Amino acid sequence: MTISMYAASVPMLKQMLQSLDAILSKAEAHAQAKKIDPAVLLQARLYPDMFPLVRQVQIASDNAKGIAGRLAGVEIPSFADNEQTFEELHARIAKTLDFLNSIKPEQVDGSEERDVVVYKGSPYEMQFKGQTYLVHFGVPNFMFHVTTAYAILRHNGVELGKDDFIGKF
Amino acid sequence: MTISMYAASVPMLKQMLQSLDAILSKAEAHAQAKKIDPAVLLQARLYPDMFPLVRQVQIASDNAKGIAGRLAGVEIPSFADNEQTFEELHARIAKTLDFLNSIKPEQVDGSEERDVVVYKGSPYEMQFKGQTYLVHFGVPNFMFHVTTAYAILRHNGVELGKDDFIGKF
Repeated sequence: MTISMYAASVPMLKQMLQSLDAILSKAEAHAQAKKIDPAVLLQARLYPDMFPLVRQVQIASDNAKGIAGRLAGVEIPSFADNEQTFEELHARIAKTLDFLNSIKPEQVDGSEERDVVVYKGSPYEMQFKGQTYLVHFGVPNFMFHVTTAYAILRHNGVELGKDDFIGKF
Repeated sequence: MTISMYAASVPMLKQMLQSLDAILSKAEAHAQAKKIDPAVLLQARLYPDMFPLVRQVQIASDNAKGIAGRLAGVEIPSFADNEQTFEELHARIAKTLDFLNSIKPEQVDGSEERDVVVYKGSPYEMQFKGQTYLVHFGVPNFMFHVTTAYAILRHNGVELGKDDFIGKF
């Protein structure tokens, strides 16, 4: 037996984006309860040359739609990266989930050997086969940004636990 | 076409443990260059009730050997969690990689429907089928701890980039 490329990708991306959405709601509630300007959390970062929370969420969204779109061989929707509020980040995640929900298993299944190009036309262009892209590059990158978003919020005192991170599946 | 449970698990676990090993070497070199007591980095954490670096590495090791062992249906080696130096963490990772290298693809392949129990006998006991365990619980948890180790070191000024995190595959 084996697992399908769809089963190895889209449902997990949805799980973690839903977790991230709920984590952001907790952060928002925390800011409100503690009278913290939401922008302080949205612009918080772990080190001056690391991305702030808002950018971590944007990149997690980019990674999720990039993985699903590239494996399915469909155009990846482009979002403007102009979110400045929790509400706008929730909307960004919702749009990303809408795109993931539009992808049918049969579009992703069979993509193991599909040619995937990342950062196309840039000096950082990388070429993969679908399976290598998903397992060794796409998922680690996506998980990096979801985890870093969580870490930024924990570091700023938002009460979160591993259950919030893993979410529901 | 489909991917095998082995291809979806062990090679990625090895990739990320090797990245973590190289990241720890950079942290060690940073501590030496800046005359920082290595124990300061090893005990660094992002928030008082989060685990310090040394524990993040131990748990990443536990997750990796747990995933491989549970999917392969073999006994998971138990390590004492007594590491106190970078050298001992490198040894811990090496032992974990030795175990992963001892697992043959045919032991993991076909484990999609294998019953997996986590935290057996504890109030937190969870039961899964192999595929759900790997995709929705095992990999997210493992990636959480590898990323948090990286985040702790970045937060403490160790010069690392995404290439260090993704590593070689």
